[in-house]
Amino acid sequence: MKQLLIAALLLASLQAVGQHAPLTAQLDQVGLTFALNPNGQPTYTLRYGAKVVVKPSRLGVALADGQGFEGPLEVVGSETKDVDETWQPVWGEVKTIRNHYRQLTVHLRQPAAPRRLLDVVFRVFADGLGFRYEWPRQANLQYFTVTAEHTEFNLPANHKAFWIPGDYDSNEYAYTTSRLSEINTTPIEVIQLKAAPYRVQTPLMLKSDDGLYVNIHEAALVNYPAMMLTVDPKTFGLTSDLVPAVTGAMAYLQAPEHTPWRTIVVSDKAPEVLASKLILNLNEPSQIQDPSWIKPQKFVGVWWEMQVGRASWNYSDSSNIKLAGTDWSRLKPNGRHGATTANVKRYIDFAAQHHIQGVLVEGWNVGWEDWVGNWKEEVFDFVTPYPDFNVDELQHYAASKGVKIIMHHETSGSATNYERRQDAAYRFMDEHGYDAVKTGYVGRIIPRGEHHDGQWMVNHYVHTAQKTAASHIMVDMHEPVRSTGLHRTYPNWLASEAARGNEFNAFSDGNAPEHETILPFTRLMGGPMDYTPGIFKLQGYAASAPKRQVHTTLAKQLALYVTMYSPLQMAADLPENYNQHLDAFQFIEDVPVDWDDTRILAAEPGDYIVTARKAKGKEEWYLGAITDEQARQQTVKLNFLTPGTKYVATIYADAKDADWQKNPAAYQIRQQSVNSRTALKLQLAPGGGAAISFKPVAK
Amino acid sequence: MKQLLIAALLLASLQAVGQHAPLTAQLDQVGLTFALNPNGQPTYTLRYGAKVVVKPSRLGVALADGQGFEGPLEVVGSETKDVDETWQPVWGEVKTIRNHYRQLTVHLRQPAAPRRLLDVVFRVFADGLGFRYEWPRQANLQYFTVTAEHTEFNLPANHKAFWIPGDYDSNEYAYTTSRLSEINTTPIEVIQLKAAPYRVQTPLMLKSDDGLYVNIHEAALVNYPAMMLTVDPKTFGLTSDLVPAVTGAMAYLQAPEHTPWRTIVVSDKAPEVLASKLILNLNEPSQIQDPSWIKPQKFVGVWWEMQVGRASWNYSDSSNIKLAGTDWSRLKPNGRHGATTANVKRYIDFAAQHHIQGVLVEGWNVGWEDWVGNWKEEVFDFVTPYPDFNVDELQHYAASKGVKIIMHHETSGSATNYERRQDAAYRFMDEHGYDAVKTGYVGRIIPRGEHHDGQWMVNHYVHTAQKTAASHIMVDMHEPVRSTGLHRTYPNWLASEAARGNEFNAFSDGNAPEHETILPFTRLMGGPMDYTPGIFKLQGYAASAPKRQVHTTLAKQLALYVTMYSPLQMAADLPENYNQHLDAFQFIEDVPVDWDDTRILAAEPGDYIVTARKAKGKEEWYLGAITDEQARQQTVKLNFLTPGTKYVATIYADAKDADWQKNPAAYQIRQQSVNSRTALKLQLAPGGGAAISFKPVAK
Repeated sequence: MKQLLIAALLLASLQAVGQHAPLTAQLDQVGLTFALNPNGQPTYTLRYGAKVVVKPSRLGVALADGQGFEGPLEVVGSETKDVDETWQPVWGEVKTIRNHYRQLTVHLRQPAAPRRLLDVVFRVFADGLGFRYEWPRQANLQYFTVTAEHTEFNLPANHKAFWIPGDYDSNEYAYTTSRLSEINTTPIEVIQLKAAPYRVQTPLMLKSDDGLYVNIHEAALVNYPAMMLTVDPKTFGLTSDLVPAVTGAMAYLQAPEHTPWRTIVVSDKAPEVLASKLILNLNEPSQIQDPSWIKPQKFVGVWWEMQVGRASWNYSDSSNIKLAGTDWSRLKPNGRHGATTANVKRYIDFAAQHHIQGVLVEGWNVGWEDWVGNWKEEVFDFVTPYPDFNVDELQHYAASKGVKIIMHHETSGSATNYERRQDAAYRFMDEHGYDAVKTGYVGRIIPRGEHHDGQWMVNHYVHTAQKTAASHIMVDMHEPVRSTGLHRTYPNWLASEAARGNEFNAFSDGNAPEHETILPFTRLMGGPMDYTPGIFKLQGYAASAPKRQVHTTLAKQLALYVTMYSPLQMAADLPENYNQHLDAFQFIEDVPVDWDDTRILAAEPGDYIVTARKAKGKEEWYLGAITDEQARQQTVKLNFLTPGTKYVATIYADAKDADWQKNPAAYQIRQQSVNSRTALKLQLAPGGGAAISFKPVAK
Repeated sequence: MKQLLIAALLLASLQAVGQHAPLTAQLDQVGLTFALNPNGQPTYTLRYGAKVVVKPSRLGVALADGQGFEGPLEVVGSETKDVDETWQPVWGEVKTIRNHYRQLTVHLRQPAAPRRLLDVVFRVFADGLGFRYEWPRQANLQYFTVTAEHTEFNLPANHKAFWIPGDYDSNEYAYTTSRLSEINTTPIEVIQLKAAPYRVQTPLMLKSDDGLYVNIHEAALVNYPAMMLTVDPKTFGLTSDLVPAVTGAMAYLQAPEHTPWRTIVVSDKAPEVLASKLILNLNEPSQIQDPSWIKPQKFVGVWWEMQVGRASWNYSDSSNIKLAGTDWSRLKPNGRHGATTANVKRYIDFAAQHHIQGVLVEGWNVGWEDWVGNWKEEVFDFVTPYPDFNVDELQHYAASKGVKIIMHHETSGSATNYERRQDAAYRFMDEHGYDAVKTGYVGRIIPRGEHHDGQWMVNHYVHTAQKTAASHIMVDMHEPVRSTGLHRTYPNWLASEAARGNEFNAFSDGNAPEHETILPFTRLMGGPMDYTPGIFKLQGYAASAPKRQVHTTLAKQLALYVTMYSPLQMAADLPENYNQHLDAFQFIEDVPVDWDDTRILAAEPGDYIVTARKAKGKEEWYLGAITDEQARQQTVKLNFLTPGTKYVATIYADAKDADWQKNPAAYQIRQQSVNSRTALKLQLAPGGGAAISFKPVAK
């Protein structure tokens, strides 16, 4: 990846400052102040214009040996510098990203022996702040163990918050919208680990009564546990709450080292939060020298039929299987196995007909008979197909159709088992023509007692990104820690799940109509999500729950391909369901997964989002508009189109009587000639949306 | 490996027995009784002739769900069968092993729901008992977690015991000899984990006042934690004390499953304990179809010079190194690095001159600068040599001399790091001509919180044995769990350390003269140990401790090659020290590491051992005699020699004035013509020994 340094004006000014002289850094509206509090502890304050974003808030890190950085520290110096550069992502929402910040580095030291050193580095952007703790190389701190991080985000008022509980092992929760004072996770059904009442996850989206949008998260989570936040519902103070290791410690580190960046994106305009590149900018450049093998793509898959209970991952209904020593060919097939050679060919055929690059196949490999819930280490071997899945035949069939089968590596949380088998698994992929893998971490983690979001697993995900990259494999991780922009550094890590996906509409009460208007403000702040949109059969799909339905209209399912950015987008429904609506499917076939430009035209978390994007290397634009349970009219000015060019807009809209609950599949498709001066009125049904392609008229 | 079933008389007799009818099984002197106690709990009793070996002792296993097998159980049936077969080990102390036992299987059931099933299987041998718990396949018990095993070994009297503390992470202790009533580990300096006062390890060697020798251990430790024993110093009762997982649970199991065999070897003759094949017989046959690539061998190595402080594993004296991103060529060499190309060539030359097959090289690979003590995961990568170790040059040099370099994989306890790199490491070995590896597990285990002797690591060692076998690699594990006879199943697993080796003479106060007379009765009951005998420079070798000395004579060092059986024997001293005593070194050069026959001629734990062995496929015998700190005369009848054949005995004996403390290097070598009617008088000095080769006179 190229990095163009346009300007890097270095204002290094090593100042010997008094203990109580505040240090400041400002860029546009965003102002940062660093000071020591009366106890000598470091604090920071953040302002946006005249408004306080974060009141004076403590900084500090405790170590296992009791000689950490939670007590008073002295400022031994500071530096500032300005950086203004641009760089180009391997793939993304825009072609070029500007990285413009003012950096303030504060050098701190313990006033007494062992006089250990700690730097706090602040980067002030026009749309927020990133800061992290850095431990320089030093004689009295080499290997050390973090037992707590005392980073505060003291909010000035009782903001509205969009939050999920602080489960150390799952992010697959519906968002609750409430005042900070009303946060309480207790009534929420726990997915994996009992959450503390006031512990919530990041990205935490906040809106103040005076019109500020604030997003708190982290960037570049490597070699450290995820940060959750403990909310004080009385003071509106948030405190970092790290995910512990099995030992109770938080992180095992070696200096020089640093924490991830703690990020605060702030704006008085909600679209600017969605457009922010602050988190990406705080990540390291790509480590992949030649990324030509990385291909953003759409895919279909043998997947939804299992989610809705019409097929099974498992080949037989036997239980209590042992991986070693089982003769899988002797198991009695249950007749519902999804990943059969014949069924996979159906998907390959469909993909080939519609220019879909990939076909995910889950349940192809042995071990699914009792794969989850037993804290079992050796569930899968990642190389042995079920008897009815012919690897070689499908390899040749897919190749003959120009389609790639996407590998699936469910680990059932047994990361140790996966790690010891990764070499063989990736070799198998190479030998059989696979260049992308979807991984999964359902269930309790092994090493036993570690958490999905703890340091050990954080390192595992990065390790897996690196290891797949070394084998030129793209990866899509399900049930990992939520994203923090690492796809900049490892662009083969196309997407993660790490949130409540569309699949919850298959097997649960589903996602509320507002869900997809919140995700871009929360989970997607860190990076692409494999949300699996594109469900066309919105009612009557669940084998055991005939009344279950998806909480959107069909047109909204199309719009999600634009409003939820990912370089990896599934067309999640079954070919037979798409074949009922091939006119609508044309949008999925057309919509790109890589973009030269993006405009957030309108957005309000929990309510609506309207996004337009320009296709990579093409004079085509695509627009997605979604709403929550409220019908809305959105007037969209097309001034993003190239002036003087005529486009045909193909508009996939909710039909007049569409309604996510009563009439979700009612859509209309119309074409219209437009140009940059056109304004379109889009009528979004309750739970509805609209998707538009703009293609220039051939001259 | 062939298994010849000579006789398998099946006496299956499914008896519906009353709750209190004892069941018995007897073979020669050894009698086993199974009964339910008044509480309905299963118990067993063991007798040797008229003597009680184990008084009625409880059996039981507790599970995490509270519905385990620690309460009353009912006997729902039992079976007995007799087995008498022979089999041939890939390598060993004898060519053919008889496996003769009477088996009693007791089928137990919980009297109330969930009415789970448990079998206890007893195998009564002429020299002791093995028994294990077996969970048959059953509907109400599939995945389960063992929280405690309540196996008792209630001893009838205050026996003399040879014991080490029950450290979950180290066996490298000197043995204490005491009455059971005097066992207390508190005063003993802990190596890794604070041991409980009354917890000791197995193999536990016992001697009763009425002349019984009893050894308690386990066989075939797979997928279960090691069993330690808690001693009641008042009642002389021993209770199983499993090594816990980090979670506090003991074992995560899936039915059908079984525990390892709990073993009690008993005899009124100490040599019969050493000759026992009970533990081997309780292990599964070899899983290696074609073992032709497995080669018992001797080796020298770049090793002792580091142990004594004259060279270093590390290339530089830098500290605080990170594996990733370090440019090792830029480190400043410390000038003491042992594993240099030139130094390794010296060892290769010496090995080639003396028909030693292997040259171990430790410290060849990067990471030793601060490798231990930091609970650091990524210390070694196992494939990157230090700048002064030329892999290719040494590969060709060794090959040209007919010598194999032995790979070294120190993990510093980070098993996760090793597992994820094993494929690459073994590929590297294959590409560079290595066919054997010494592994090491110094330090705290990662996954953090797991123990060296817990289930997870037990599985790691077995996994490593399997994985090396798949790559045709022989393995020698240091700091693993102690051996339980698994070298029968994985004969590429040549040896383990797992006890206090000769190396303690290099860097500590050393091993008492009695140490090697105890090890065969304790640690070696489970399998070969890489003890690293053969130190010739017995004084003045330690760089920083000029008064340090080995606590044996030189002749005893030779004798250890016979008294301590291993298919892998190091000649541990430096070439230059051997070159001072090439006449004595001839014994090391001659002594085999694989045998057709073995005779324990005399033995008393803690006092002396005299062992004779017949070379594999040759008409040569070798004899080793060792004593503790007491001088002894041993009269050895050579009736093991083939009658009618004349042999030249080359006798490597302590000189008249030899003494481990005052004059350890004083030896004499004499030759004598002998035959099967000869009796030799061997005078062993304090801490001394004798080694003899018997070669037939050419006709």
